[in-house]
Amino acid sequence: MRKYVPLSGILWAFLADTKVDVSQPPVETLGALLPAGRLITDPDAMDAYARDQTYAAPGKPAAVVLARDTADVVTVMKWARQHLVPVVPRGAGTGLAGGATATDGCVVLSLARMTAIQEIVPQDQLAVVEPGVITADLDRAAREHGLMYAPDPSSHEISTIGGNLATNAGGLRCVKYGVTRDSALGLEVVLAGGRVIRTGGRTVKGVTGYDLTGLFVGSEGTLGVITAATVRLRPAPADAPVTVLASFGSLTAAGAAAAAIMGAGLRPSLLELIDRATLRAIDDYRRIDLDADTAAVIIAQTDGPECPAAELVRHCEEAGAEFAAASTDEAEAAALLEVRRMAYPAAERLGNCLVEDVCVPRSRLPEMMERIERAAARHDVRVMTVAHAGDGNLHPLFVFDRGLTGPPPPVQAAADEIFTAAIELGGTLTGEHGVGVLKRPWLDGEFDPDTLAVHRQIKQALDPDGLLNPGKAI
Amino acid sequence: MRKYVPLSGILWAFLADTKVDVSQPPVETLGALLPAGRLITDPDAMDAYARDQTYAAPGKPAAVVLARDTADVVTVMKWARQHLVPVVPRGAGTGLAGGATATDGCVVLSLARMTAIQEIVPQDQLAVVEPGVITADLDRAAREHGLMYAPDPSSHEISTIGGNLATNAGGLRCVKYGVTRDSALGLEVVLAGGRVIRTGGRTVKGVTGYDLTGLFVGSEGTLGVITAATVRLRPAPADAPVTVLASFGSLTAAGAAAAAIMGAGLRPSLLELIDRATLRAIDDYRRIDLDADTAAVIIAQTDGPECPAAELVRHCEEAGAEFAAASTDEAEAAALLEVRRMAYPAAERLGNCLVEDVCVPRSRLPEMMERIERAAARHDVRVMTVAHAGDGNLHPLFVFDRGLTGPPPPVQAAADEIFTAAIELGGTLTGEHGVGVLKRPWLDGEFDPDTLAVHRQIKQALDPDGLLNPGKAI
Repeated sequence: MRKYVPLSGILWAFLADTKVDVSQPPVETLGALLPAGRLITDPDAMDAYARDQTYAAPGKPAAVVLARDTADVVTVMKWARQHLVPVVPRGAGTGLAGGATATDGCVVLSLARMTAIQEIVPQDQLAVVEPGVITADLDRAAREHGLMYAPDPSSHEISTIGGNLATNAGGLRCVKYGVTRDSALGLEVVLAGGRVIRTGGRTVKGVTGYDLTGLFVGSEGTLGVITAATVRLRPAPADAPVTVLASFGSLTAAGAAAAAIMGAGLRPSLLELIDRATLRAIDDYRRIDLDADTAAVIIAQTDGPECPAAELVRHCEEAGAEFAAASTDEAEAAALLEVRRMAYPAAERLGNCLVEDVCVPRSRLPEMMERIERAAARHDVRVMTVAHAGDGNLHPLFVFDRGLTGPPPPVQAAADEIFTAAIELGGTLTGEHGVGVLKRPWLDGEFDPDTLAVHRQIKQALDPDGLLNPGKAI
Repeated sequence: MRKYVPLSGILWAFLADTKVDVSQPPVETLGALLPAGRLITDPDAMDAYARDQTYAAPGKPAAVVLARDTADVVTVMKWARQHLVPVVPRGAGTGLAGGATATDGCVVLSLARMTAIQEIVPQDQLAVVEPGVITADLDRAAREHGLMYAPDPSSHEISTIGGNLATNAGGLRCVKYGVTRDSALGLEVVLAGGRVIRTGGRTVKGVTGYDLTGLFVGSEGTLGVITAATVRLRPAPADAPVTVLASFGSLTAAGAAAAAIMGAGLRPSLLELIDRATLRAIDDYRRIDLDADTAAVIIAQTDGPECPAAELVRHCEEAGAEFAAASTDEAEAAALLEVRRMAYPAAERLGNCLVEDVCVPRSRLPEMMERIERAAARHDVRVMTVAHAGDGNLHPLFVFDRGLTGPPPPVQAAADEIFTAAIELGGTLTGEHGVGVLKRPWLDGEFDPDTLAVHRQIKQALDPDGLLNPGKAI
């Protein structure tokens, strides 16, 4: 079993490989290069920028820069190269893998104040945005033109497009509309050292050169800092969403229903599975009249004629649903979806939470859920699982004592078993949250040494001094 | 104006930068390492493997290897590194950019005999294939399970999946189902020197590590040789296709119809535009009763309820179509599409052809078509244009004298203007054919020096000796 802690050891081992100057960097010289109001060095003020939503313990940054434009980012990157200071880019800090965790002596580079929606071009169904734009704000701006921005991570009301791009964020709708990478057409990126490049463009097709857009998306700030993005918008669905809720006496039946829906070529705009433990927590939180026999619930939504709600209901019933029904109006559609949204608040009432994020081939979903339950039982830890069932992406959520600052050894042991199981089932450590610092110890379970080496060769080529978000992602 | 010729000069300039041994390589030593029947050194027999479907003049390969498995590819790559011999990978040689053109003294590495469909996994909607599988064969095999393999380059009956992946091939259906990269889940790749890596996997989501799958797809054999691919299959459409044909008195009206269809959020499974010159050539070839006033035709197809044929017809009529109608049965649907498929044969009757491949933001399509006509008129060359209108991807097709081995200076000059125009309109040199050798002289029109440098840093990191398909793509 590999351990979550001591992470600081991992970080230092990595830093030892880089040419980072860990003596006090002359941050005053950086402040002198930036317009007023950009640099923070007050330790208390810096605290808010040193971590994301995980328990990963941050180091002490030398400074925080609140960039307002690409020029600020270039200034930071040139200065950082000159003084060999690591740079930790961040958006809103809603990450769930420790990807934005500050390291000792680093400059935290916040893009959260670059909030301009520079263009919306309805006729080409695209927008050009700065990285600090809030995800849901872009979606709302697009709706004014009859369009939508499809990616919708659960944090979409507080997360930024830049952070979504850095982690290739998923969400509920990606079962129909794809993940963040599928909506990225082009990027402006500032490289280590301050060079600015432009990848991709404004066309929906294009094969000139390598897919650098796809490479930077999901690279967790380790290859460059995204300072602008051209993203794909899509026509907003004409139909009001209809939600289908179905309850099942077994996980296997619920998994079979999800498989049948996807196998039939229906395109639900979301397809979620909630296990018994989660349902009980939700029922304790807000009475949902849970039947004692219910082992799992499927919540699906459709937003178009290619996926009739009646077909979703039929597939659930044929798979053995005890109950299955479609919403009859928009209010009911929203209310049924609310059951899914209550999962995290219901869990957080019970203690501190570790949210995991494995993904398996769709057909292995029921097996993966059993493996999660077995691992939790073996280590006597409390686990609740919700899954983006249409994508095979599961979020086992471990609840542990509120007095602890991080997951205790039994939770770590159960998580370790879950990662191993996901890889055994042909899956991956992380479907949409990223590797960050938290999953780095497991990388060599997913990649063979030569494949991992290629990642590091690319990192070395673009960031030879190892300054960009050291100790993250790869 | 940059020139198409002398290409050999460009190649040699590139080779001069690499550590390639241009003295006679000891191919006998390679033959001794491979199983019998893999190595060809007879010059006449090698000719068929030295070029693709372009007029790009090939060099003289030292040998051709017909690989049967990954081990053969590893053997070639190890031997090539040892002797510093360039390797030019190829599939079926249907490329349209010179990407598979042999260079003097190289080993041509054909993957065309690695033809196994290793797995079709209906429950996970994926297949694992060797690179030599013919694209249409995979689609047919998937249909036996109610699934389809969506990417359909025009060459799909003769092209290979490996070649499609290397060039990120498009096709007619990609307006609905995406390009080849969108169907690539994971790869086995042999790197320069013979290391074997595995990228991606069997899940539809996954964010562990960089998007190496996306990076190798479209890299035209310059970063590694794809020896297996896990590709996404999709449920085959339940509805029989319906084809809509509409004729217009102006290009602008036809462009407006295409824009209206895409803007309405309809999802046609293809959306093609054919200009007057092409229509006349088709009419001369096989009488299609072309009206003298027709300036352009739109051919669209739908395969699902989210895109009613009547809506396609309505948008064409509202945009000013002189005639618009939907097919009433499958035979008629196929017959109407046949008009589109006749474009290339009709052109080839008239002389030698240079097929170009620019792509612009959708809204700029009519403007790009005008720029093409103006460029052709200015240089007094014959051009016919068909466009994947839903994607903004245009194929201007220049016809020139059959006695010439390559496009004459006026055609080159017109093509040069077209590339410049595409970039001015926010577009790209190549939407789906690739850069190969033919478009390389224009790369610095599309990329600024720093962006181009990043491409070359990645190439250098993965292929430091410059052995893999030198002089192509970047």
